Amino acid sequence: MAVRVTRFPENPLITPEQVTPSEPGWQVVGTFNPGATLHHGEVVLLVRVAERPRAGNPEEVVAPVLDVTSDPPRVRPRSFRRDDPEVVVIDPRWFSYQGQVYLTSISHLRLARSRDGRHFTIDTGPTFSAGTWYESFGVEDPRIAEIEGRYVVTYTSVSEHGIATSLATTKDLRAFERRGIIFAPENRDVSVLPEKVGGNYFCHHRAVARHIGGFDMWAADSPDLVHWGRHRRLMSPRAGTWEAGRIGGGSVPFRTPRGWLTIYHGADQSNRYCLGALLCDGDDPGRVIARSAEPLLAPEAPYEVSGFLGNVVFTCGTVVQGDELTIYYGAADQYVCGAVVSVEDVLESLA
Amino acid sequence: MAVRVTRFPENPLITPEQVTPSEPGWQVVGTFNPGATLHHGEVVLLVRVAERPRAGNPEEVVAPVLDVTSDPPRVRPRSFRRDDPEVVVIDPRWFSYQGQVYLTSISHLRLARSRDGRHFTIDTGPTFSAGTWYESFGVEDPRIAEIEGRYVVTYTSVSEHGIATSLATTKDLRAFERRGIIFAPENRDVSVLPEKVGGNYFCHHRAVARHIGGFDMWAADSPDLVHWGRHRRLMSPRAGTWEAGRIGGGSVPFRTPRGWLTIYHGADQSNRYCLGALLCDGDDPGRVIARSAEPLLAPEAPYEVSGFLGNVVFTCGTVVQGDELTIYYGAADQYVCGAVVSVEDVLESLA
Repeated sequence: MAVRVTRFPENPLITPEQVTPSEPGWQVVGTFNPGATLHHGEVVLLVRVAERPRAGNPEEVVAPVLDVTSDPPRVRPRSFRRDDPEVVVIDPRWFSYQGQVYLTSISHLRLARSRDGRHFTIDTGPTFSAGTWYESFGVEDPRIAEIEGRYVVTYTSVSEHGIATSLATTKDLRAFERRGIIFAPENRDVSVLPEKVGGNYFCHHRAVARHIGGFDMWAADSPDLVHWGRHRRLMSPRAGTWEAGRIGGGSVPFRTPRGWLTIYHGADQSNRYCLGALLCDGDDPGRVIARSAEPLLAPEAPYEVSGFLGNVVFTCGTVVQGDELTIYYGAADQYVCGAVVSVEDVLESLA
Repeated sequence: MAVRVTRFPENPLITPEQVTPSEPGWQVVGTFNPGATLHHGEVVLLVRVAERPRAGNPEEVVAPVLDVTSDPPRVRPRSFRRDDPEVVVIDPRWFSYQGQVYLTSISHLRLARSRDGRHFTIDTGPTFSAGTWYESFGVEDPRIAEIEGRYVVTYTSVSEHGIATSLATTKDLRAFERRGIIFAPENRDVSVLPEKVGGNYFCHHRAVARHIGGFDMWAADSPDLVHWGRHRRLMSPRAGTWEAGRIGGGSVPFRTPRGWLTIYHGADQSNRYCLGALLCDGDDPGRVIARSAEPLLAPEAPYEVSGFLGNVVFTCGTVVQGDELTIYYGAADQYVCGAVVSVEDVLESLA
């Protein structure tokens, strides 16, 4: 039985045009992949805002890179001639020069809040920006877990040395304390569970292998949120399905009577990104009980099919209110969208 | 000034011919990359022993894989026809079938001990073997740190889902307690320091990136040896040098008056593996003070230049006695060798 997932008629909820760039002369190219939580009765999103210098010379490709040697650190564009044989354009997101990969935009996190979960007021400046050497290519794809009275935010730190996951804590989603890199490259899509299990904190993460293996999801635990260990494989892509190419954690898992439920992403061999549901054991979130045979949400709406990177729906956060699960998601690496589904229906689809 | 590193005239110290295979009908193809420590006045090595079924059908490639579903777990050979278009032979160590990488041998760890550090008595059976699903392709490249009265062994766990690093503890180097995977794929070359620094345990590890970055060494700390965090990049390969292609931790670092000293490996773009020295801050082993401009040891002896994988010297362990540093190393992925150098000379070369 297909689960009925209802897209918000207001979609896309947030578009690049609504967001003020951090610097004059820059343009916002993407507002997507928001972390989501409830805070003082409002839905609060930390939206990934990707921006770059407004298009200049069409014969150049430009990578905005944080220069941490300047005080304060500043983003400076690095330009390369497109016709330089050392330049290889990979896709709209990245290119390489002499083998070093660069991103065509740099992302920060921007707070947006809403009483109805559909109409958002967006901050006029960045909320959390790249600030360390490990973030010189930006900060991306936050997940927000509310744990013991504070918010624990995991986010991707990207630099020339790789794609890692960092952790920060905050009481108000405005002032953040950086707690360092919790997973060295290459690792992303990390979600921390909102409560301890078996005495330790718990997370799902997505390791990337190079020589053997590929894109598997793993589980790990921690005594203090900063140090992680006892890694065990959670699940792998499944050949011949919607998630044959890669998978990765999405929203922060939440408790249901049947176990920990979360929405994750899978992509097929053509990089079509869909969303599915994953149910893990309530006492051992490192054990899979069930996962979606078919996607819950596949890119079908126009704003999902075309955009900065078409055919992508990708979630970093959901909000649960009773039986109503609101999935906030990035569409086409360009827009923030929302959809709603019944938790009961999702659980039934996994039975 | 070049440092004088003296190879033992007894080299190679251990060869595959001296080692009894774990099963009749098998052959040992490599004895190499030993972890090393002192124990009850003897030098004790945990030697990586790579073995495989004795060559059968020359038209086949064979991967020995641990079947954990049998009780007890058993290694079973998986055979593929060489002329199958889905089979791609990568090098003597591995091949792929339908995109899945397999190893041509499976490794276990074997204890060898010696009073003079040059003539070894080798156990007649495996000391520590693949035993979990994460080790179905074998256990490799152990590092032995003596910490607080016990030995902490980090080793590579290889399976179809990737190359990870696990940790085990032992009092006698014979009975081991597995403590799980401390670094998810892809990560290897992990050395734990023999004492806490700043209240926490400390290690060097080598992350492997896929989309951005490459083969960097990282540092991390831990409250309990099992959970690791606060990752920071230690150092990267250096273009145009002996270590342009990749680097990775080697022996367990030891304290000197000038800081933590360790022998690590670097490979150039042609995969010629050499050994160099790395000096890190005594109070912060995550900060590099100096590293070798030129290799301390490069593959030059016949047993280093040719063998299972020629042009490779690779260390997992050293023994320090006064000013004398004995480097045990794998040569050509086939032999255990030894060489000696003055700690003072190494430090001077880094000044």
